[in-house]
Amino acid sequence: MVRGQRSVAVVGAAQTPFGTRPESAPRLLRDCVREVLSSVDKGIAPADLGAGYLATLGFGGWQLGDAAALLAEEAGRPSMPTVRVENACASGGSAIRQAYHAIRSGEVDVALVVGVEKMTDLTSRRRRFWLGVSGDTEWERLAGLTFAGVYALMARRYAMDHGPLEPALAAVAVKNHANGARNPHAHFQKVITAEDHDSSPLVADPLRLYDCSPVSDGAAGVILARRELAARFTDTPVYLVASGGGSDHLALQDRESLTSLRATREAAQEAFRASPFLPKDVQFAEVHDCFTIAELLALEDLGLAPRGGAGQKELAGDTSLGGSLPVNPSGGLKAKGHPLGATGVSQVVEIFQQLRQAAGPRQVPGAERALAHNVGGSGATAVVHLFSR
Amino acid sequence: MVRGQRSVAVVGAAQTPFGTRPESAPRLLRDCVREVLSSVDKGIAPADLGAGYLATLGFGGWQLGDAAALLAEEAGRPSMPTVRVENACASGGSAIRQAYHAIRSGEVDVALVVGVEKMTDLTSRRRRFWLGVSGDTEWERLAGLTFAGVYALMARRYAMDHGPLEPALAAVAVKNHANGARNPHAHFQKVITAEDHDSSPLVADPLRLYDCSPVSDGAAGVILARRELAARFTDTPVYLVASGGGSDHLALQDRESLTSLRATREAAQEAFRASPFLPKDVQFAEVHDCFTIAELLALEDLGLAPRGGAGQKELAGDTSLGGSLPVNPSGGLKAKGHPLGATGVSQVVEIFQQLRQAAGPRQVPGAERALAHNVGGSGATAVVHLFSR
Repeated sequence: MVRGQRSVAVVGAAQTPFGTRPESAPRLLRDCVREVLSSVDKGIAPADLGAGYLATLGFGGWQLGDAAALLAEEAGRPSMPTVRVENACASGGSAIRQAYHAIRSGEVDVALVVGVEKMTDLTSRRRRFWLGVSGDTEWERLAGLTFAGVYALMARRYAMDHGPLEPALAAVAVKNHANGARNPHAHFQKVITAEDHDSSPLVADPLRLYDCSPVSDGAAGVILARRELAARFTDTPVYLVASGGGSDHLALQDRESLTSLRATREAAQEAFRASPFLPKDVQFAEVHDCFTIAELLALEDLGLAPRGGAGQKELAGDTSLGGSLPVNPSGGLKAKGHPLGATGVSQVVEIFQQLRQAAGPRQVPGAERALAHNVGGSGATAVVHLFSR
Repeated sequence: MVRGQRSVAVVGAAQTPFGTRPESAPRLLRDCVREVLSSVDKGIAPADLGAGYLATLGFGGWQLGDAAALLAEEAGRPSMPTVRVENACASGGSAIRQAYHAIRSGEVDVALVVGVEKMTDLTSRRRRFWLGVSGDTEWERLAGLTFAGVYALMARRYAMDHGPLEPALAAVAVKNHANGARNPHAHFQKVITAEDHDSSPLVADPLRLYDCSPVSDGAAGVILARRELAARFTDTPVYLVASGGGSDHLALQDRESLTSLRATREAAQEAFRASPFLPKDVQFAEVHDCFTIAELLALEDLGLAPRGGAGQKELAGDTSLGGSLPVNPSGGLKAKGHPLGATGVSQVVEIFQQLRQAAGPRQVPGAERALAHNVGGSGATAVVHLFSR
């Protein structure tokens, strides 16, 4: 099997609305599985599914062990091999990566990948806990450094290296909210202005409220299939053409840089090494903007903007829907929402719809090649996937 | 690539001692990684490692999100792609399955798989929680059914169907303790008698103290490599020739049977479908004996004993070290110990040593083909792997 070929197809994808949802984690899972199965153009039977991958960090505290078995049950094939994958906020992308490997291995023909998280009904202490556990425990969480604080440190260093930052951060927030306003599944469907951003309260200097992605509930799912089988399920599959992964030290203090995520760079390198196209050929990207600063770092680490130059691209409108390289047309984590385990899968739901020209008012015209970038914690893990029509 | 061929090799394997350990989860991880890397006959460099898989359920409560990144750090290759895999007590076997798929896909050449759990220093409430979360939450855990209680229900039904059970359960306990007494890494290295078993206190009728695996700390790791690369690392690799997985409903009440785990049957079917050898060719097995009754169910579901006939095999000594089909020569979960995430990996450590004729006083003479069987929760997930020299 040759790397970088269209060996794996996405044949179905769907998500629940993200936001403050009344449903429990098991119910979000159930609703999502139904939506995903019915998203397959020519239909799919439970018996068609060869394996299931569940991405979740806390599953709403409901079933912390063996939750993956629920995926088999809800898919109507209780004996289907399943596994839970957890890489903090990169759990979704990592689950897709496992499914990609399984299909390319020849051991699995069709895989169901679902990410789910239920966060808003947790008490504030538990919510802080489930967010905090993804950063370094010893040197960060137990020392009192919050997750926003970690990214604030990166933002401060970035501003020291590259000059005034707030206008660029505002541009990211304004753009992602504008995109979210066109996404009926987004947590926030509200346009904001740079003034709204600049006058929002500081959360961790220099990051303001509108620099932070929200705490969301939701689930997202995709169905991957061996290329040769795709036509059984749809005439317009999307191809997952390359996968890359990377890690880094959990604690910021141990890393080479505060303004570049090595995990992202490694993941992008692995993906582009296998890809039939280059970074310059990417037509839009869903990147991990858990904070606005993270979108700038992502563009640079992915090779989509020069070092220190991502802010300028954002300010120039290049990353907007009508720009030369739309970033986060879905609204991103910032506006679409960030239900941890669901996030990386939801990025692929967006790409599936965009590459099938079915993204409605937020369609990137004629999009044929896209990138998904999912980060765990403050950059200790990252996954990059590349897609084409 | 043809299924069931020797496409993946085990080129290194090691574990920490299991038991009540003074080390923290991160330290157990560190110690294990060092041992595994130095177990490779011809040496291995961090740069040789292509991916890391961490199996853990709670990681001692230390780093509940993104803990897999620690594996990259400890392996001396901080940028290595890593992922945490969790399938309750089948996390270890499931992690090996992910690595097997990744290598067979051609995307990864060499993979490091480590399972780790730190349980004994948890408060009793937290320990109960981490054990309990692997059973069904709604109908079992929250209703007060303990994990021993779940298996006690299976044992009672088994006795109703197949007659008096206690002698067979005692035989399992006595045999696994005898094997554990020959394993310097076992939690319990103490021979017991059937009388010891029969006079031990009831935990959940009919299961007694000596029917239950202990709460253990420990870590275990293996290195898998693409077959073609094995000779770089060792002249005596062991081959992982087939992998199977299966799931089932979390709650007992939803299952087809109380005395047969469908997840195990499905996993065994998938593995043997791909295997170059048949169940009758298996020369010894490491099976998931979290309770003595589980070993009987395993033998029957794996096709290694007739339905209702496993007890007779145990009583006849067939499963002892000198018998026709030694089962759990390592001592099994019962005596070697059961540090959840480490358990499934440790089974493969034992098989690696046995198939290399390096298991010392517990060596199965001339062993060439073996089976590993790892169960999650009370049978909601299961993984079966087959090995040959």
